[in-house]
Amino acid sequence: MSTGHAPDIDRLIQLLGKLPGLGPRSARRAVLHLIKKRDPLLVPLAEALATVRDRVRTCSVCGNADTVDPCSLCADPRRATGTLCVVEDVADLWALDRSDLFTGRYHVLGGTLSALDGIGPDDLSIAPLVDRVRREAIEEVILALNATVDGQTTAHYVTERLASTGVRVTALAHGLPVGGELDYLDDGTLAAALQARKSL
Amino acid sequence: MSTGHAPDIDRLIQLLGKLPGLGPRSARRAVLHLIKKRDPLLVPLAEALATVRDRVRTCSVCGNADTVDPCSLCADPRRATGTLCVVEDVADLWALDRSDLFTGRYHVLGGTLSALDGIGPDDLSIAPLVDRVRREAIEEVILALNATVDGQTTAHYVTERLASTGVRVTALAHGLPVGGELDYLDDGTLAAALQARKSL
Repeated sequence: MSTGHAPDIDRLIQLLGKLPGLGPRSARRAVLHLIKKRDPLLVPLAEALATVRDRVRTCSVCGNADTVDPCSLCADPRRATGTLCVVEDVADLWALDRSDLFTGRYHVLGGTLSALDGIGPDDLSIAPLVDRVRREAIEEVILALNATVDGQTTAHYVTERLASTGVRVTALAHGLPVGGELDYLDDGTLAAALQARKSL
Repeated sequence: MSTGHAPDIDRLIQLLGKLPGLGPRSARRAVLHLIKKRDPLLVPLAEALATVRDRVRTCSVCGNADTVDPCSLCADPRRATGTLCVVEDVADLWALDRSDLFTGRYHVLGGTLSALDGIGPDDLSIAPLVDRVRREAIEEVILALNATVDGQTTAHYVTERLASTGVRVTALAHGLPVGGELDYLDDGTLAAALQARKSL
């Protein structure tokens, strides 16, 4: 089947179609849009994408994705030490941080325990979390995990692993809708959940 | 408000959010997806985007967007000469061409006449179309314009302008849903409309 355009354009359509939220048809429209808006959009987007490709890395302290290591959050002297907010994912870290409700430091687990997907404790950043709690003299660990079965299982497991450090472990209150994901919450619900956090 | 990430990442999110079909939130998810899939997606996408940025151009013959000029359709010796299919937009050319129903050459007008948007005959590729019909000894011009008021107005105007050349001018049959746009049609409807094209 002819496509009416060169393989280079076709390849861009195929790759863009792999992004969440874009299918083959919307990817084609996006590419046509890019070609029409060459200077205001295509050129800067290619530049921004190359910059992120060249510079993005995982923070060796907390696991955030950033262009510097330690990341801008870990390096920010205005952020409170002593409290760690543990999240499943970089997306959750960004969601929480956009809400401006938490001013401490973060720790990204990199997923949740899942027997189904074969994800065990060693696949997550749990041992580094325990080290960090000891090394940084953390007083409170807030578990901001998704209110899913895997999220809550992981919360229990992390709590057990942290028991030997004597740190206070809290979790977001069940203001979270059951089965919901943190990244989709509005700030009001996030605020309520953070406010009503409880000791485990 | 803190964003949890560097300005470089933020800029990429903002630019991706300008694509049709992506908003600020889905752009953020897309960027997180890209960061997670660095080697299989981010690197090739950056490469593909840079290639298209560097190579894409408008075909000086038909107005198609491609990486070569004349475009791969105009340069294809297997495509029939003698019949021109006139479309409003590169998107429409690609849509028609994907259907594999038309084996001749194309001509992109670059829009439709629109008093409201101040688009007159000189803003469209109409004079080049008349030249082409004379120079390439075209026998039939198929007007494959959207079934909108502006599309049909443009069809009438182009027909008048082509009258002096003596070429046969046809238009897609009204198998098109009224008010619908060509780019969204299924191949079956396109086939019916192409089959039942009528003299103007």
